[in-house]
Amino acid sequence: MKAKIITITREFGSGGRTVGKLTAQKLGYDFYDWNLVTEIAKESGFAQSFVEENLEDAQNYVPWLFNMQSIGSDLSDQLFAAQRRVILELAEKGNCVIVGRCADYILRNRSDVLNCFIYAQEEAKKKRIVHEYGETEVKIDKRLKDKDRKRKAHYEYYTSRKWGKAFYYDICLDSGRLGIENCVQAIIGMAENFPGIPRENED
Amino acid sequence: MKAKIITITREFGSGGRTVGKLTAQKLGYDFYDWNLVTEIAKESGFAQSFVEENLEDAQNYVPWLFNMQSIGSDLSDQLFAAQRRVILELAEKGNCVIVGRCADYILRNRSDVLNCFIYAQEEAKKKRIVHEYGETEVKIDKRLKDKDRKRKAHYEYYTSRKWGKAFYYDICLDSGRLGIENCVQAIIGMAENFPGIPRENED
Repeated sequence: MKAKIITITREFGSGGRTVGKLTAQKLGYDFYDWNLVTEIAKESGFAQSFVEENLEDAQNYVPWLFNMQSIGSDLSDQLFAAQRRVILELAEKGNCVIVGRCADYILRNRSDVLNCFIYAQEEAKKKRIVHEYGETEVKIDKRLKDKDRKRKAHYEYYTSRKWGKAFYYDICLDSGRLGIENCVQAIIGMAENFPGIPRENED
Repeated sequence: MKAKIITITREFGSGGRTVGKLTAQKLGYDFYDWNLVTEIAKESGFAQSFVEENLEDAQNYVPWLFNMQSIGSDLSDQLFAAQRRVILELAEKGNCVIVGRCADYILRNRSDVLNCFIYAQEEAKKKRIVHEYGETEVKIDKRLKDKDRKRKAHYEYYTSRKWGKAFYYDICLDSGRLGIENCVQAIIGMAENFPGIPRENED
């Protein structure tokens, strides 16, 4: 069979989004990442600008600031619930690549999903950020650290999984060591010959 | 360039050894795993039977039993040192696949090494162990747990790395979800188009 859905979890600066986009283009699949904001806004009833400000990177996702009494946490949970519904619906349509958004976890019970994790070593990520986002070298350490800390905290809070642990993914690739094109090729190869064995229950 | 050396770190029951062996056959590379015992015995001066009993699975590798005063720890360190010298020498010859033996860590400063981690989910590993090693289902849980606990403890003690963390490998593959053949294909694809960018210094 063919994997109908490919999820990409990625470190900031690893080029995981680019890997996902090229994979989608080559397979003729739909591509979703930040563009899901519009759908999540519709589904949650929140304004798009609110969703943009509060999705994933919001401080209230960071567990050490998390407080059951805070409105922040309720909003976060509502956003996550809306995101979950949007992703489950997209999966029904199939033939798509989804970057981030805990899609790997949300779709863990489907057998037609290939889950990928893309990462890279520090210097490779820094180079990429400077090149892609025009960041200055000075601020780069803090930005890398902040972004990944928030991404990790959000992911671990909503999935109870450990960020960066190979076990949760079908394939993990160091894009810095292997190059973007090799990563795309490997994912396409796997997607085209995917055995479709379901993940074992982790709940 | 082509990756001259492929290291395979693997969970017990994941079929990582088979992945390594098939990869070596297809690339025409030498294959090393348990057969390194003879070389390590020669290099260390210990008897082959002693090396067989004390390599990797020995209790004295388990950190919570580790004691600087114990002879056990000295022997373990001597064995690891001999293993290290043997692997560094093999790497000079190149064109080989090395399974286990912390080869990924020992060769971390070479740019021609492709590092792979092979794992699988619990039920997939159990099925494989029953099928490959003729183990009874009854003892399987304990055997899986023991083997991986020792392998992990040995690896973490000698490398200061975290077992199963994607970051330390170029490519990580769930052999249960993807199938052995897909894993072999992905590794060969990477080995043949390996950019040869050195790993960043982690010492």
